[in-house]
Amino acid sequence: MKALWLEDRELAVRDIEAPAHDGEALVRVRLSGVCGTDLELVRGYYPFTGVPGHEFVGDVVESPDPSWVGARAVGEINAACGECETCRRGHPTHCERRTVLGIVARNGVHAEYATLPLANLHRVPDSVPDEAAVFTEPLAAALEILEQVHVLPTDRVLLVGAGRLGQLVAQVLALTGADLRVVARHERQRDLLATRGIAVIAEEDVEPRRWDVVVEATGSPSGFELARTAVRPRGTFVLKSTYRGDLTLDMAPFVVDEITVVGSRCGPFAPALRLLERGGVVTDGLVEARFKLADAVDAFAAAAKPGAMKVLLEP
Amino acid sequence: MKALWLEDRELAVRDIEAPAHDGEALVRVRLSGVCGTDLELVRGYYPFTGVPGHEFVGDVVESPDPSWVGARAVGEINAACGECETCRRGHPTHCERRTVLGIVARNGVHAEYATLPLANLHRVPDSVPDEAAVFTEPLAAALEILEQVHVLPTDRVLLVGAGRLGQLVAQVLALTGADLRVVARHERQRDLLATRGIAVIAEEDVEPRRWDVVVEATGSPSGFELARTAVRPRGTFVLKSTYRGDLTLDMAPFVVDEITVVGSRCGPFAPALRLLERGGVVTDGLVEARFKLADAVDAFAAAAKPGAMKVLLEP
Repeated sequence: MKALWLEDRELAVRDIEAPAHDGEALVRVRLSGVCGTDLELVRGYYPFTGVPGHEFVGDVVESPDPSWVGARAVGEINAACGECETCRRGHPTHCERRTVLGIVARNGVHAEYATLPLANLHRVPDSVPDEAAVFTEPLAAALEILEQVHVLPTDRVLLVGAGRLGQLVAQVLALTGADLRVVARHERQRDLLATRGIAVIAEEDVEPRRWDVVVEATGSPSGFELARTAVRPRGTFVLKSTYRGDLTLDMAPFVVDEITVVGSRCGPFAPALRLLERGGVVTDGLVEARFKLADAVDAFAAAAKPGAMKVLLEP
Repeated sequence: MKALWLEDRELAVRDIEAPAHDGEALVRVRLSGVCGTDLELVRGYYPFTGVPGHEFVGDVVESPDPSWVGARAVGEINAACGECETCRRGHPTHCERRTVLGIVARNGVHAEYATLPLANLHRVPDSVPDEAAVFTEPLAAALEILEQVHVLPTDRVLLVGAGRLGQLVAQVLALTGADLRVVARHERQRDLLATRGIAVIAEEDVEPRRWDVVVEATGSPSGFELARTAVRPRGTFVLKSTYRGDLTLDMAPFVVDEITVVGSRCGPFAPALRLLERGGVVTDGLVEARFKLADAVDAFAAAAKPGAMKVLLEP
C-alpha cells in the first residue's frame, strides 16, 4: 500500500506492506489530518520511524467483530494494555505500555490502511461528514480541558493561540458561557473567531494577573510567557501544546500565587462526536488545503507554514 | 400606570401609582415573561402582595448614572444589601436582607414600569432581540447548574422535565458535550428538543442508579422520585425547581449511596447574555403566546395549562 514514511527526520511516500492486523480492526483511510505533533516528529520531538499521522476517518474493512465491517469510524490514538495499574484505574490514555498511533511504536494513518484495536474505534454519525469527522481527535483533545478543569460560566478565560488546535479550543471554551478572549496572531485566525462570535484581544491588552483560567495553545516560548503572567493568583494555567525541547521554567511565581498548572493532552471521543453532531462545534473554515497522499511531502510543507490551518490527506 | 396585582391569591389588572425610584433605575418594561414561580405565588407558595413578575427586558428611563438612560436592559432579581456577611462573601443572591423582584417585598415587572438597583442591570447586546432577551433570567438560572457542578464531557446526564425552564436547562447541559437524555412528558417538548439535536428518553427506559448527574426540573413528586432513583452511587442530584408545600424525603439512600444533592436557584446574567449573543442557546419555539398586559389574567391561565411554554406580556 501507499504510505508516508518518516525515517531520520526525512519524509517520503513509499510502497510498503499493508499492515498485519491480528486481533485488531483494519481501516481503509478516507481522510487524514496533519497535526502539529506530526510536524514536531519530523523535527525530532520524539524518535519515530514509520508511518506518521493519528487524525483520521475511515472505513472498517476487517474486524474481529464482524458487525463493525463497513462502519465509518474514527479512532482513539492510544492503544493501551488494559492490564497495568494505570489502565485498571481507568486511565488507558496514560498506560505505561501503550503504543500511540503514528507517534509511538505503531504505524499511523497517513497511508491507505491502518490498524487499531476495536476498543479504540467510534462510529461516526451519518450526519457528520468526513471533513468534520477528521477533526474528532483534536476536538477531543480540546474537550479534555473541560474534563480536567471546571470552567465556570462566570470565569474570565484567556486562550493564547488560535491555530489548528486553538480554533477548536476556542469553540469549546465558548460553550461554557465564560467571558472568553483569544490572542490570535494571524488575521485569518481572528476572522474565523469573529464568525463564531468569539472575542479576540490584542497581546498588549492582556492584563497580567487577572484571568481565572488561561489556556496556552501556541507551543512557543513567547506565548507561554504571555499566558503564564496572565493567570490570576489561585487561577488555573492549562498547557495545551506540545513543547519542543526544554522549557526551563522558574516555578517560584506559581508557588507564591498558588497557581494550578494542568497539563492536557488526549481527550474523550464520544462527546466530540456528540458536539459535531449537534453543531455545537463547527469545522468550516478550518481546512487549509487537501492533498493526495502521493503529495504528502508537499502537504507537510504547507502545514508547516506559519498560520496554516488544517491540511488534509486523501489516499 | 397599568400593572398586574396579586393579593390574597387573586390576580387583577389595576391602575397603580408608578414606582418611586429613589437611587434606583426606573425601567419601562418592553416584555415580561410568566414563570412557574409566578404561578406558584398565585397558588400561595409564598405570601406576596403586589406586582408579580421577575423576567423582563426594558428600557432604562431614569437612572442615578445618566449613562444608563436609554439603555435596553435585563435585570438580576435579587436586590442585596451589599453589607451583610453573605454579601461580603460574594453571594449577594443569598443576602439575608434581600428583596426579590416580584417575589419578596418588591414590586415586579408585569407592569408598565419597574425599578431595580443599577447594580442589578445588564445591557442587552444589539443583536439579541427582545424576544430572546426576556429569557435571560431563566437561562441564567439554568447556567447556575454549571456554576455549581462540574459536568464532565464524558458524564452521563439525565434531565427530568422539559418545560419552560427545562428546555433551557437541556440546551445548557448539551453544551457540555455530555451524554444527555431528557425525560419530556409532552410531545411538543420532545419535538423542540429534537430540533436542537437533544436526545429524549422514555420514563420507563431510565435505568436506575446509572446517571452521573441528574437534574430535576419538573417540580412534581413523580418527577422527583424518577430523578432521585436514577442517580448513581456517588453521583450528583441537582434540584432545579420550586417545590410547593412539603417535600418529605427519606434521606437514608442519599447517605448510603453517598449522593451529592445540589439545590440550584438564580444564576449569572453575563454568561447568559453571551450565549444568547453567540447563538449557543436559542429561544425559538419557546414562546407559547403573547398577551397585552391588560389581558394578564388570561395570560396566567394560559401559562398554567399543562405543557405550556413561555407566555409573554407586553405593556
